Amino acid sequence: MGPGVEFDLVRAMLEAWGDAASGVGDDAAVLDVPPGERLVVSTDTAVEDVHFRREWVGMEEIGYRSAMAAMSDLAAMAARPLGLLVALTVPGERRDDVPALARGIGDAARRCAAPIVGGDLSAGRELSIAMTVLGTTAHPLSRGGARPGDRVFVTGVFGGPAGALRAWRDGDAPTEWSRQRFARPSARLREAVWLARHGASAMIDVSDGLASELRHLASASAVEVRVHLDRVPRGPGISLDDAMTGGEEYELLFSSGQVVDVDQFARQFGTPVTEIGDIRPSGHGVVVALRDGTRVDLAHGHDHYSA
Amino acid sequence: MGPGVEFDLVRAMLEAWGDAASGVGDDAAVLDVPPGERLVVSTDTAVEDVHFRREWVGMEEIGYRSAMAAMSDLAAMAARPLGLLVALTVPGERRDDVPALARGIGDAARRCAAPIVGGDLSAGRELSIAMTVLGTTAHPLSRGGARPGDRVFVTGVFGGPAGALRAWRDGDAPTEWSRQRFARPSARLREAVWLARHGASAMIDVSDGLASELRHLASASAVEVRVHLDRVPRGPGISLDDAMTGGEEYELLFSSGQVVDVDQFARQFGTPVTEIGDIRPSGHGVVVALRDGTRVDLAHGHDHYSA
Repeated sequence: MGPGVEFDLVRAMLEAWGDAASGVGDDAAVLDVPPGERLVVSTDTAVEDVHFRREWVGMEEIGYRSAMAAMSDLAAMAARPLGLLVALTVPGERRDDVPALARGIGDAARRCAAPIVGGDLSAGRELSIAMTVLGTTAHPLSRGGARPGDRVFVTGVFGGPAGALRAWRDGDAPTEWSRQRFARPSARLREAVWLARHGASAMIDVSDGLASELRHLASASAVEVRVHLDRVPRGPGISLDDAMTGGEEYELLFSSGQVVDVDQFARQFGTPVTEIGDIRPSGHGVVVALRDGTRVDLAHGHDHYSA
Repeated sequence: MGPGVEFDLVRAMLEAWGDAASGVGDDAAVLDVPPGERLVVSTDTAVEDVHFRREWVGMEEIGYRSAMAAMSDLAAMAARPLGLLVALTVPGERRDDVPALARGIGDAARRCAAPIVGGDLSAGRELSIAMTVLGTTAHPLSRGGARPGDRVFVTGVFGGPAGALRAWRDGDAPTEWSRQRFARPSARLREAVWLARHGASAMIDVSDGLASELRHLASASAVEVRVHLDRVPRGPGISLDDAMTGGEEYELLFSSGQVVDVDQFARQFGTPVTEIGDIRPSGHGVVVALRDGTRVDLAHGHDHYSA
């Protein structure tokens, strides 16, 4: 895009980030991992008209949710954020959107206490945001730690993002609750660290839909996950299908060998944690779903439960 | 792109990477930074028709050079690679290119001894490769460490990538030397670690052109960099302009308080190191360029020297 234009856009981003950016300017950023802790890293890309549409949400919200989506992978490992790298691809005619996009990214970074430590700006034909998140923890949680006898929990209330997408695609306005769940998700970072300290044995963040993540957890742990669909907390007017198969929730699904103090959790974090099932022995990963005490197939696609 | 297609493409990438990939599968990768070392991180994006054209080089070469370009930022800090994260955006009609692209990335990762520790795959309208590199070092080099009295050096021979681009844009075939310099660059990782142990005081990798990088080094160190343009090593048939302003060299520009043993360096690494100038005091960063002993303006753009 030419050095002058690139310089102006980088300056606009740095202005939008203020003290959320740190150590940007050399060929690479230098960071310290606390002694005794391990490094946790993940990368995630959001492409316009694939992952979001500007007809639905503003550029600031697009920046915000892209950063939170990446941060959610750190939460899944119970890692504390160390930093965020932002690689933006911006078409020439969309340069004016960069400051708002950067403000949203900066807002999310600040809320996660994750300094923006590096970036890259490219021209391109479509708007794209590639985020890499760095975190640290002494004891990373994986998907593979669930053991027979553990209980299964979720944070939050499900179906909001799916409800919003459904409304937008039908040409309707989503409820304010659904819209906020799509536009302003929260990576459950502090919640994950607390849960790891209070007995969580396996954890995964819900980005592909709760039904998929249950399968991932069962498979990685080589256990049977028994889930009571009636217990899955749903938002206002949300179908069981949207709650089970809708993606981009960025809530936590986890197993725990301890009883989680749901009241303390709700008081401390302002969001519920709900027991939805338990772990049983199995030679290979399998999910058993119960509805009103009767075994049903776990959803593989849309409208599976909507009979 | 749908879970089935995505799964197939991820499997194709993992097959292409073989043992070059490590720990992929959980929400995030877990890595260990050696005790006493610091973490060095950088991110870099290559977009088709912006940074490369498939009419010029094959998909395997595109993957290779994208990974090397990102790795070069670790070399600039004298860091050893710890890992590489690859975020690919692939249009539907380009899915068949993914295995070759992945082979090139895997080849570069293996040569750099950098395991591929994470990735992301998205649909999109244009092919784009966002790479994040992680490295470690106890003593990162920066651009800001040049001191009056230091000598100024470059690794390698300049002008190849610019010569290749010029030929392609003119509809000609580049020389084999120029083509290889463009398609198969080498991040100077081992060289940088050796140089840091042998007195290098400031370092930068040449991605934007030697003239630009001289200015960056002078500015970050707040010194005068005096450079003898006649001493800049140029490839066969390469103009001074292409050598000074051509980008994507991925060679090192560095200052050193010691005399570098150029013979030992050439024997050990198979590439030359050349003294091209020295550092003098200055209140602010400035580059003084000399040609045949006469002061000339440092190039700001193309064809500046071609009189």
